[in-house]
Amino acid sequence: MPIVHITRRERFSAAHKLSRPDWSPEKNMATFGKCANPNWHGHNYELWVTVKGEPSAETGFVVDLSELGRIINERVIRHVDHKNIDLDVPFMKGRYSSTENLAVAFWEQLEEPVEALGCRLHCIKLKETENNHVEYHGG
Amino acid sequence: MPIVHITRRERFSAAHKLSRPDWSPEKNMATFGKCANPNWHGHNYELWVTVKGEPSAETGFVVDLSELGRIINERVIRHVDHKNIDLDVPFMKGRYSSTENLAVAFWEQLEEPVEALGCRLHCIKLKETENNHVEYHGG
Amino acid sequence: MPIVHITRRERFSAAHKLSRPDWSPEKNMATFGKCANPNWHGHNYELWVTVKGEPSAETGFVVDLSELGRIINERVIRHVDHKNIDLDVPFMKGRYSSTENLAVAFWEQLEEPVEALGCRLHCIKLKETENNHVEYHGG
Amino acid sequence: MPIVHITRRERFSAAHKLSRPDWSPEKNMATFGKCANPNWHGHNYELWVTVKGEPSAETGFVVDLSELGRIINERVIRHVDHKNIDLDVPFMKGRYSSTENLAVAFWEQLEEPVEALGCRLHCIKLKETENNHVEYHGG
Amino acid sequence: MPIVHITRRERFSAAHKLSRPDWSPEKNMATFGKCANPNWHGHNYELWVTVKGEPSAETGFVVDLSELGRIINERVIRHVDHKNIDLDVPFMKGRYSSTENLAVAFWEQLEEPVEALGCRLHCIKLKETENNHVEYHGG
Amino acid sequence: MPIVHITRRERFSAAHKLSRPDWSPEKNMATFGKCANPNWHGHNYELWVTVKGEPSAETGFVVDLSELGRIINERVIRHVDHKNIDLDVPFMKGRYSSTENLAVAFWEQLEEPVEALGCRLHCIKLKETENNHVEYHGG
Repeated sequence: MPIVHITRRERFSAAHKLSRPDWSPEKNMATFGKCANPNWHGHNYELWVTVKGEPSAETGFVVDLSELGRIINERVIRHVDHKNIDLDVPFMKGRYSSTENLAVAFWEQLEEPVEALGCRLHCIKLKETENNHVEYHGG
Repeated sequence: MPIVHITRRERFSAAHKLSRPDWSPEKNMATFGKCANPNWHGHNYELWVTVKGEPSAETGFVVDLSELGRIINERVIRHVDHKNIDLDVPFMKGRYSSTENLAVAFWEQLEEPVEALGCRLHCIKLKETENNHVEYHGG
Repeated sequence: MPIVHITRRERFSAAHKLSRPDWSPEKNMATFGKCANPNWHGHNYELWVTVKGEPSAETGFVVDLSELGRIINERVIRHVDHKNIDLDVPFMKGRYSSTENLAVAFWEQLEEPVEALGCRLHCIKLKETENNHVEYHGG
Repeated sequence: MPIVHITRRERFSAAHKLSRPDWSPEKNMATFGKCANPNWHGHNYELWVTVKGEPSAETGFVVDLSELGRIINERVIRHVDHKNIDLDVPFMKGRYSSTENLAVAFWEQLEEPVEALGCRLHCIKLKETENNHVEYHGG
Repeated sequence: MPIVHITRRERFSAAHKLSRPDWSPEKNMATFGKCANPNWHGHNYELWVTVKGEPSAETGFVVDLSELGRIINERVIRHVDHKNIDLDVPFMKGRYSSTENLAVAFWEQLEEPVEALGCRLHCIKLKETENNHVEYHGG
Repeated sequence: MPIVHITRRERFSAAHKLSRPDWSPEKNMATFGKCANPNWHGHNYELWVTVKGEPSAETGFVVDLSELGRIINERVIRHVDHKNIDLDVPFMKGRYSSTENLAVAFWEQLEEPVEALGCRLHCIKLKETENNHVEYHGG
């Protein structure tokens, strides 16, 4: 039976900064550059969630995309959209808000509910600016 | 010897709907939502065909892209562009026109003629809207 | 006082064809080419609605974009999204569904309700494919 | 002599919020929605600066784009990139950070130095998200 | 009667450089920077040709886009695509290949044949890179 | 420990042609088509460099993107941007400038310095036009 990957894109706009409270402002600036600005900055993030499975003989779908979208919004987007990632997001508590760490955290938020839809989570792709993005495949 | 993947993009505009003739209109609407509209809707599809092989020592090419384009047009695009996928496309007879099923059908249309060019088909990527796309790797 | 233009983008996917019932199939094909396919084709349309006015001293807004979005959806998108423009859309009855005619019809649908928001409609831009779009400024 | 418009794009990432200190949190939320989140949010802004003039007979240029870029960075980008628009930007003091107000402020920052380059400022276009942007022509 | 603008996009890839034969290499480099590299560089140019007119009562078209495309290819694209703008293009003889000058030259190439189609040329927009483009309206 | 892929995009504009000096002009034209134009043509290339590794517990980074950018510029971009790939680029001497060969050469330029940053090179993706790109994974 064919295995097909299907991807849904979502977007969110959020504030964050990169800085460690246990480091001096100078060390934060040397390490994180302008991302360490104490008053925050922000991005329009683009998120691609890819799941895989066999298309259903009944519908032709690997997954109902509106169901997948509902889960992504429930588990990720409503927590981060128009929020401050470092102050407002429960599942980012204690983690630096690098794009890498965000992708891993989103995977953790989505792995189980995606399996409950009868398919498997394959990739979290997260784009921070037009010049950089990360991908995480769960291991 | 290096193995390189090369991708050609093609586009087509087509009508379709998602609905099963053996289901009631109510069940179709409940399952497929607005995609079940009886009078059809349509999309600008984007198709990326990725093949892989060793670059030729003679030309530096994995494949002559104009040859690859000719095959994609002959085997796929001319059948679907400005067509109704559910009514006009021989190789979609008896299949629901989900993006997943389209990608699998395009793979079947392209696998052999791509091999005849001396390379191997690697991926069919098909984008239905800016928020969803599928990928199929042939198994 | 400064006059600022603000634009909101919406999207819809629809089926249509270009053909006149009073013309022969041959004449339709000669005039409209593959757009005359009797079984329809379709597009992902992108719509940009531009309004103009003075930013409010109270909010900095020319218009509340969520209000503008609500009107665009109420007056245009819900009538055309996942529909057949030639069969399902009341305000296109008796008009050929060229991109030009669609833009003029959308203007007519939006001019009054935009004025009711306290600003003026400036431009309807409608993109049918990545290679063609139209703009209408109302006269 | 021909008048040509030439446009340079720049980008910046910034945090902001929309809320009035003299309003209650409830009124701010009712007016500005999720943009009123007290802990800020942010965007990747895209800025297009259009100037106009006659191409020089000596160089074919309306303006030296690297000179124009230098001015845009000096007068706008370095003040807003990886900053908090509401806290860090001198020329936004006392203004709500709506996209409309930002475009007007950028015009004020750029009008004189652009004229000093021998051409005229024509348009500030500022895109906040893929679904909304503003344009300001200076009056 | 409504006046509608309609735009067709075409693309071409070409080599060029910016340098004056009557200037020293040093002066060319000081004026044109890396664009003065003696061995050429190149771009994927995007060209948008906008025409305006009343939609025909018979077809809904301001212009037959395939006719417009044919003219753009005949008068512009075939002369510049996969060519060296400074060596291969008759209508650029004696002009520096700045984007500004190209846009003016394309206008001259297209103005008459567009009028012969029964509409008027409105704008030539030419994008050299994702960060710069020019527009010319013919005067 | 999680392995995350992170990608940085860079861009360059260059001239090249596809033709073998040991072939007749006729054979070059038959094989390479318009890409064989003797006076060159050019492209805006987009380059995505993907590296992989574990995010640092100290910073959340797989790699410092500004370090990665510095290496890409030092090893690749400064050699090809606003250059003639066939005449100006030392590491392309003796190779035809197909997109496939460019990707392999860029891999060779980047593999060692990327490892010196403490991560591994995963993919070179190079886009020549909006309709074709290649990917190379190093073997």
